[in-house]
Amino acid sequence: MITAFDNPLLCGLLGDEKMATLLGVEVELATMLQFEKALADVEGALGIVPAAAASAIGRVLDNFRPDIPALRAATALDGVVVPELVRQIRQAVGEPHSEHVHFGATSQDMIDTAMILRIRACIDLLEERLSALVVAFAELGHRFGDRSLMARTRMQAAMPISVADRVTSWREPLVRHHERLQSLRRSVLVIQFGGAVGTLDKFADKGAAVRATMAQRLSLGDSPQWHSQRDRVTELANWLSLVTGSLGKFGQDVALMAQAGDELQLAGGGSSSAMAHKRNPIDAEMLVTLARYNAVQLSGMHHALIHEQERSGAAWSLEWLVLPQMLMAAGASTRVADRAVRTIAMIGGEVS
Amino acid sequence: MITAFDNPLLCGLLGDEKMATLLGVEVELATMLQFEKALADVEGALGIVPAAAASAIGRVLDNFRPDIPALRAATALDGVVVPELVRQIRQAVGEPHSEHVHFGATSQDMIDTAMILRIRACIDLLEERLSALVVAFAELGHRFGDRSLMARTRMQAAMPISVADRVTSWREPLVRHHERLQSLRRSVLVIQFGGAVGTLDKFADKGAAVRATMAQRLSLGDSPQWHSQRDRVTELANWLSLVTGSLGKFGQDVALMAQAGDELQLAGGGSSSAMAHKRNPIDAEMLVTLARYNAVQLSGMHHALIHEQERSGAAWSLEWLVLPQMLMAAGASTRVADRAVRTIAMIGGEVS
Amino acid sequence: MITAFDNPLLCGLLGDEKMATLLGVEVELATMLQFEKALADVEGALGIVPAAAASAIGRVLDNFRPDIPALRAATALDGVVVPELVRQIRQAVGEPHSEHVHFGATSQDMIDTAMILRIRACIDLLEERLSALVVAFAELGHRFGDRSLMARTRMQAAMPISVADRVTSWREPLVRHHERLQSLRRSVLVIQFGGAVGTLDKFADKGAAVRATMAQRLSLGDSPQWHSQRDRVTELANWLSLVTGSLGKFGQDVALMAQAGDELQLAGGGSSSAMAHKRNPIDAEMLVTLARYNAVQLSGMHHALIHEQERSGAAWSLEWLVLPQMLMAAGASTRVADRAVRTIAMIGGEVS
Amino acid sequence: MITAFDNPLLCGLLGDEKMATLLGVEVELATMLQFEKALADVEGALGIVPAAAASAIGRVLDNFRPDIPALRAATALDGVVVPELVRQIRQAVGEPHSEHVHFGATSQDMIDTAMILRIRACIDLLEERLSALVVAFAELGHRFGDRSLMARTRMQAAMPISVADRVTSWREPLVRHHERLQSLRRSVLVIQFGGAVGTLDKFADKGAAVRATMAQRLSLGDSPQWHSQRDRVTELANWLSLVTGSLGKFGQDVALMAQAGDELQLAGGGSSSAMAHKRNPIDAEMLVTLARYNAVQLSGMHHALIHEQERSGAAWSLEWLVLPQMLMAAGASTRVADRAVRTIAMIGGEVS
Repeated sequence: MITAFDNPLLCGLLGDEKMATLLGVEVELATMLQFEKALADVEGALGIVPAAAASAIGRVLDNFRPDIPALRAATALDGVVVPELVRQIRQAVGEPHSEHVHFGATSQDMIDTAMILRIRACIDLLEERLSALVVAFAELGHRFGDRSLMARTRMQAAMPISVADRVTSWREPLVRHHERLQSLRRSVLVIQFGGAVGTLDKFADKGAAVRATMAQRLSLGDSPQWHSQRDRVTELANWLSLVTGSLGKFGQDVALMAQAGDELQLAGGGSSSAMAHKRNPIDAEMLVTLARYNAVQLSGMHHALIHEQERSGAAWSLEWLVLPQMLMAAGASTRVADRAVRTIAMIGGEVS
Repeated sequence: MITAFDNPLLCGLLGDEKMATLLGVEVELATMLQFEKALADVEGALGIVPAAAASAIGRVLDNFRPDIPALRAATALDGVVVPELVRQIRQAVGEPHSEHVHFGATSQDMIDTAMILRIRACIDLLEERLSALVVAFAELGHRFGDRSLMARTRMQAAMPISVADRVTSWREPLVRHHERLQSLRRSVLVIQFGGAVGTLDKFADKGAAVRATMAQRLSLGDSPQWHSQRDRVTELANWLSLVTGSLGKFGQDVALMAQAGDELQLAGGGSSSAMAHKRNPIDAEMLVTLARYNAVQLSGMHHALIHEQERSGAAWSLEWLVLPQMLMAAGASTRVADRAVRTIAMIGGEVS
Repeated sequence: MITAFDNPLLCGLLGDEKMATLLGVEVELATMLQFEKALADVEGALGIVPAAAASAIGRVLDNFRPDIPALRAATALDGVVVPELVRQIRQAVGEPHSEHVHFGATSQDMIDTAMILRIRACIDLLEERLSALVVAFAELGHRFGDRSLMARTRMQAAMPISVADRVTSWREPLVRHHERLQSLRRSVLVIQFGGAVGTLDKFADKGAAVRATMAQRLSLGDSPQWHSQRDRVTELANWLSLVTGSLGKFGQDVALMAQAGDELQLAGGGSSSAMAHKRNPIDAEMLVTLARYNAVQLSGMHHALIHEQERSGAAWSLEWLVLPQMLMAAGASTRVADRAVRTIAMIGGEVS
Repeated sequence: MITAFDNPLLCGLLGDEKMATLLGVEVELATMLQFEKALADVEGALGIVPAAAASAIGRVLDNFRPDIPALRAATALDGVVVPELVRQIRQAVGEPHSEHVHFGATSQDMIDTAMILRIRACIDLLEERLSALVVAFAELGHRFGDRSLMARTRMQAAMPISVADRVTSWREPLVRHHERLQSLRRSVLVIQFGGAVGTLDKFADKGAAVRATMAQRLSLGDSPQWHSQRDRVTELANWLSLVTGSLGKFGQDVALMAQAGDELQLAGGGSSSAMAHKRNPIDAEMLVTLARYNAVQLSGMHHALIHEQERSGAAWSLEWLVLPQMLMAAGASTRVADRAVRTIAMIGGEVS
């Protein structure tokens, strides 16, 4: 719990409970087992493993509780949780079916596809939040849009605009980010399935069929393996940072308006340990923080595009260290933005 | 000429002559004047400025050569070239039409729209190069695809694949980047036109008509002003780094294959000042360098999303310091990749 | 537990148990209470608060267990844990002494000084690890130094060197990082104490004395407040990324040597879920991952230097999101490096 | 001239003429030739090459003008300028001495040592500027220090401080950066000399003597080769971004004070093309821009620490793409800051 996203003191400020659940180890294991179950089902249905093996594996997976300390210990050596997880599943399945567990798949198939399944849930949450934010900004515009605001360019008073003008500049990017989700879903929500070196070598000529059926079973798009082609997940990261960046602009504006004194009033705001009179625009500040955080992290995802050969342990693990936090930051940012919009009690002034 | 992109010793290695032309000051000034000319034309046609003024301005702009040292000196004070450039144009136009120059527009309208015009040419160049690269990789696959290659995962020999498998992992991301260009063009190639504070305040109810006609004249998409909504240019930057990142993976693979010794032969390669026997995989290395460069720069574009109020001098100027180099890096990377593909003289081994 | 550092599956791979303890919430709260206790002690000793109040506060703090859910809820509103923590302490102290709790201090004094206390322990751990690594590399040199290795420049075979030459290039930077710690300690391990706006306004002419005595009590350096001058903590971050970067070079070299096949043997290495014959150089890869991770994060700390006015909620919180992970990455990197050195079973070849 | 640092319109705003000279190709070539001349001198003096050869080489180098287009063309193939430059020098020296040119050295020795020589001049310039800034801030404090200013924490009015308090927060980090230069000089201003693979293999037991004498001749520190140990130059980059970051904080404060309206007056400021009444705090904004620029770039230098084997073309070239711009940004920032301090015409208010 060393990050502010998890820290028991700070997670209410900088984290997001819903996103934390979607990114937690329970869901992580569940999506991995979901992959293995779909694999057994499909391989049974296509006659690649015996039907009896498939149903035996499925039954075991329905109630499977892995030994997490053993997973952790093995992962520290293997670099990935899959060998030990498969070993545990095989042990639970027992003879004679255990050899059919994970047949034809490799670690990356399970890890990446399970990650995509979690990403789908994260995107659903963010999409819902973006929709709500677009509505909330529209409502803010309705309430205060006709009022007057001093436009500021280069931080200097320029000439009056309406509050609606400023609010539009906050809302419109979110509308576009929402639209971008359509193509992003097609690009990102795709199965990864390639076997040891990406050639589905264990399936003879049935490889594509197994993959397509797996994709259908998991409600994901089908595509040839992309294990060393990381543009899909990087495109997601781009989008996450666009979202947090646009909300950061909103937060920065609110903080500046709150400083100006007569441009904006907040219903609420943070206390100070030394100055009881203060009302600090905490939400606005956190939006800036989260925007800069993701702007920094995104760089890591782009370095991870340089994914050497058929599988790069170094580049792949870098994604693991960066992407969950970017999703969390987007979760926190959309959560905080929602509150920030709603606590604006007044904005702009009477039209003179 | 302090950057390696411009440095007379290094620009052949890390730069790109074609991209340098598109990003040079000649084209920069030309696109700014193109904006001013379109503005005068449209404002004349719509009766916003006298037709005589519009044609007088147009005539002047057709042959206008600004005083560059004066522009530089004024920009150092004003933070943007436009006030002095407009002053020079007005002086050249003279009475009685000078007051109609730049009517209703603001600095950012000219700078951003002119930038978009240059970006269009850059995208055209990159699209052409990507198309050629997709073909070149296909040809590489045709030549050597049936040969055998040891797949490597986590930098260890795994099992044999075909050369075609590896080549596919280089080509497919480029195909997707090419496809991404379609929506990117719609999103990015859009006029910026808002006037002093984004409200087109000088045009009464004709603002949208002026903007739409301007957009048509410049063959750009029409859209309400986006002067403080920087997701469009940031999306371009995302794409640039996806392109260089994917080519960086190709470069890294080539360098590793060249090290292995028996996996790849280059027809050519760099000399060493101390070891005459060496043939260094320079192109491959530069692809890695340029990929990491853009992965770093991209962060700056995302920080620039936090564009405060109606115009942020700080965030806007940060784009100026980052985006041209990202375009150049993408230019250099596509140029180098083309040569790198073509100098692969042999790849993989006989199928045993 | 959304980050790989904390994730129950991954923390054995990418985390560091000792560093996790030093960065955990238990130690965090302990160092905050340590600050408050030192404050009460010193203020009592200097006659700024009544001696009875000081000892009452001290007694309470010795056994104080804060209500963590209440801290979390308040922090989500206040942006910082201190107002609620002080409220809880005051409640525990009760009348008539409660008003003397936290006297003259502000949130940032407590948060920053407590952070410095934790940083000291982290630095101690890293220093110990660096010392051990310098010895381990020296031993590696003793064992295999006389053997022969093909030097590689630009990833191409150049000419033979001794193993000692390569090992020296891994060890020497660590020696320098160890030396850099001396000045870093002087620069970073300094009390932050300024009161509400940095002027120690509650202490009349005794402010500097309170601060100096506090520093002495906490075994920290004394210095005027630096609440908006963040170069001290940024310098620490620089150093952390230098350490992980140098170890990343070692890791990259090991991974490349392991790929070459005959240059290095590892006693151990990771398993593959699909290919039982493989021995993956996991530790080496993780060193690269952690190096790139910190190279990315460092950027965030430098953005946080732009700390506006007397206290920036946005910039300060960005440090909270970045620095603990950088410390953790340095912890993990030094831990992994130690194992990586020790599992090198053979390096280089016989001198011909 | 594609970067804003070089662009003829923007270089007065974001560049620095003095730094541009120090980083230009003329000085670059001069320092490379300075290296070759010192090498010939020292090798002649130590009897490693014939005295006649040394003096012949020296005479040629005194007036040597390389063929720059040929250098550019060769660098595009070789990845480094040295092989062709040495070829040109050898040609100019002619028989029988040409074989003694560059004896025992490698490309990286020349490139890195020449870079260190340029860095020394850049550091001298920055040190001079920092000294002047410390004085300028002290004078600002003397002029306005007793006046009153509203302290702002989390962008909200807190309580009054003196102007001196704020000015101190701008000056003190610069004092520390100035002090940091002492150890930085010792760490960075060191010769790189190792020969082809770092072992000075051509010099038998005289290698260390050649290197030490070279270092003395060039007034650099002596040290074993560090060709793959890049912490020295990275430490410089850290320092550059600390400097620009601290000045960015000053700039951000000035921009915020200028927005507040009654806290600060600037004598001067930028014009607007649309609003004649405006006075924009351009210098302050540029300080923020340059700070964020370097905060972004620094990440690239830390990635370049992962410098594989004895020489990494990819990592080394990344330094070339990043470090000169960081130096330039520091040059521009110190230049702009000097003007920014001097144009503050009033700060704070009367003490009530």
